[in-house]
Amino acid sequence: QGTRDHPPAQAALRERLLGAVVSCFKRHGAAAIDTPVLELRETLMGKYGEDTKLIYELQDQGGELLALRYDLTVPFARYLAMNKITNMKRYHVAKVYRRDNPATTRGRYREFYQCDFDIAGQFDPMIPDAECLKIVHEILSDLQLGDFVIKVNDRRILNGVFAVCGVPENKFIPACSTVDKLDKMPWEEVRSEMVGEKGLSPEAADRIGDYVQLHGGLDLIEQLLQDPKLSQNKLAKEGLGDMKLLFEYLTLFGITGKISFDLSLARGLDYYTGVIFEAVLLQQENEHVEEPVSVGSVAGGGRYDGLVGMFDPKGRKVPCVGVSIGIERIFSILEQRLEASGEKLRTTETQVLVATPQKNLLAARLKLISELWDAGIKAEMLYKKDPKLLKQLQYCEDTGIPLAAIVGEQELADGVVKLRDVATREEVRM
Amino acid sequence: QGTRDHPPAQAALRERLLGAVVSCFKRHGAAAIDTPVLELRETLMGKYGEDTKLIYELQDQGGELLALRYDLTVPFARYLAMNKITNMKRYHVAKVYRRDNPATTRGRYREFYQCDFDIAGQFDPMIPDAECLKIVHEILSDLQLGDFVIKVNDRRILNGVFAVCGVPENKFIPACSTVDKLDKMPWEEVRSEMVGEKGLSPEAADRIGDYVQLHGGLDLIEQLLQDPKLSQNKLAKEGLGDMKLLFEYLTLFGITGKISFDLSLARGLDYYTGVIFEAVLLQQENEHVEEPVSVGSVAGGGRYDGLVGMFDPKGRKVPCVGVSIGIERIFSILEQRLEASGEKLRTTETQVLVATPQKNLLAARLKLISELWDAGIKAEMLYKKDPKLLKQLQYCEDTGIPLAAIVGEQELADGVVKLRDVATREEVRM
Repeated sequence: QGTRDHPPAQAALRERLLGAVVSCFKRHGAAAIDTPVLELRETLMGKYGEDTKLIYELQDQGGELLALRYDLTVPFARYLAMNKITNMKRYHVAKVYRRDNPATTRGRYREFYQCDFDIAGQFDPMIPDAECLKIVHEILSDLQLGDFVIKVNDRRILNGVFAVCGVPENKFIPACSTVDKLDKMPWEEVRSEMVGEKGLSPEAADRIGDYVQLHGGLDLIEQLLQDPKLSQNKLAKEGLGDMKLLFEYLTLFGITGKISFDLSLARGLDYYTGVIFEAVLLQQENEHVEEPVSVGSVAGGGRYDGLVGMFDPKGRKVPCVGVSIGIERIFSILEQRLEASGEKLRTTETQVLVATPQKNLLAARLKLISELWDAGIKAEMLYKKDPKLLKQLQYCEDTGIPLAAIVGEQELADGVVKLRDVATREEVRM
Repeated sequence: QGTRDHPPAQAALRERLLGAVVSCFKRHGAAAIDTPVLELRETLMGKYGEDTKLIYELQDQGGELLALRYDLTVPFARYLAMNKITNMKRYHVAKVYRRDNPATTRGRYREFYQCDFDIAGQFDPMIPDAECLKIVHEILSDLQLGDFVIKVNDRRILNGVFAVCGVPENKFIPACSTVDKLDKMPWEEVRSEMVGEKGLSPEAADRIGDYVQLHGGLDLIEQLLQDPKLSQNKLAKEGLGDMKLLFEYLTLFGITGKISFDLSLARGLDYYTGVIFEAVLLQQENEHVEEPVSVGSVAGGGRYDGLVGMFDPKGRKVPCVGVSIGIERIFSILEQRLEASGEKLRTTETQVLVATPQKNLLAARLKLISELWDAGIKAEMLYKKDPKLLKQLQYCEDTGIPLAAIVGEQELADGVVKLRDVATREEVRM
């Protein structure tokens, strides 16, 4: 339940999609690493907040207590700490596991791919952070997924808002996770959850509401930097200063048109410490799809400066910022689009089918195909002793093989091969 | 325990190796599929004989009882049956799991990659089987692993041998798994295990010994086809007939020089029903490595005509033959060879570092690198506001970046970039 096989057509589309993502990661100079699907349970515990209950645990088999990885970020932090690496730009494309209620029509599975790019190291502020946003912009543009916006916020700004609105510090995290729901429910409902479930005072909630419903660009940053209350809060001021720097760099990258500084963006995970971001696709107005794939976030990430230190015996910190591309949702969109277009993706790359028009020519086919393989040519033949020529050509049409190399008695006698273009039926002897 | 992280250098080597294997599979017209790492426990039970105890089981979490896949063959058979597919040529490169005693120095892990190519369908005898052997031959030749031999046998021949030697049918499988040890221990020990542990009569064991120590080529097949006892056994006769056909096809492929018909080859798994094979590397005589990686089998496979039927409610059979490349052992060999050569594999593909020679030029770097990325060029820069030029060039040398694109105050004023070849120090303004 919540997992799926990928038949060849899906596997081919996935290969194309992952290829585009990985080529962007490589364009930005990232190296690949791979870590086991299995992690020690204790490595994963206490890193995901409420979501810890979604971790798949392996049976105790008399050895170590193991679990399936929940994401690629915690294993990366564990890897850095274990190997005392303080500086690394890496990507990792692999499957992760969540014992969630699957909602496969909306692209939510228990086993799914993640594509992560992260930069670890002590650097000048916001330069790696800006690169992560550039990467999201490049990938979403390359894949031509339609219009999108990348929401940006900073945990320090959010915490500053909570502080100046009179929220006690031990309620920052619950307040944060409630704010995160603003993209799915109206402010009134979020407010009543804050007051009812999370125990915030109505006044505090109202004050929070004035802030978290704001979104904009550099102008909003400037406005908040002048805000009489917020400008007095050290954390918020730091966050706003960095946000301004980030926008400066994003302007140089020429991508601010798709960036929205959005104070309602909170993101669920506990480990973020600074900038956070999330890309969402915008439903085009002229799209009249009957049942559009409901798309939410297609990429997200942020800065997590404390996570590596949690795995280091001496607590040495390695600042990190990274992005995860929501490949499954993008895959669903591309798949639906491919279906709508009626285009058939080839599942193989075969260039030529080796065929014979008469009987008793299996030996000739085997000899020729072997020569082609040895020359690096992608070739197939039917696994029959005496297939009909029509069947062989039909196989080419069914599977999209463009050429047939035909050896008949005459060709054998003449020492040639007849090469046939399957689509045009043109033939040359060679 | 028994798993490992792959740091960038290993991941890069692995990417190269898997690339060579996958490109061979594609050359033979295979389509990719992907299946979940998780399978229902019941799917895996009763398929691996004694090795069933090595299956990793997940904790019962109130839902389905799950396990991690043990190989890629059983999931493939399950996939075919579930989707009622009777005809398919597919490859699958993915990780599998075994709760074995890890012996990491010999390349035996609890999590490791398998690279499988299989052909499913009812075809004329031995044509797909021959292609599997051709694939092994191509891959081992391409990778230049040194001399190798591909041992070939047939379960029907082995069972025929047991029958004519007086082994009762219920002891075929134990006899088979004992014969399989002939590559690791001398006949005398195998014989005493047969008689002592497996309860065969000394006479039967001696008769078996006369057969299973034979190996050769077409001549041996002819000899056994004339064997007064074996030629009377229906199964053995079928197997020998097919073996003769196989050698005919392998002759057309021009690869019999590396093929040995070896009656001691048995292979452990229960599900094989016909041809079986295994490739082993031969230690070169002129190799004076102090501690050579102990290499065993680097590829193996065979025909399993009954497995798909085990998953079909009506027991409908789909004949299959396939090969699995032992990528971990090959990886160990290549890794050791790379180390010995002193060659350093690049872990990134970055083509150019964007650098500045003076202070306060971060904006120029960000603008230029953004243009390069947008043009599809693999580019990096240091994440510092004002890095020293020497540091930037040093980074190129450390990571193998061949070019530096330098923008200084003069270049900015002239509207040019200085492109520097890191190795030769040659510079052009452009």
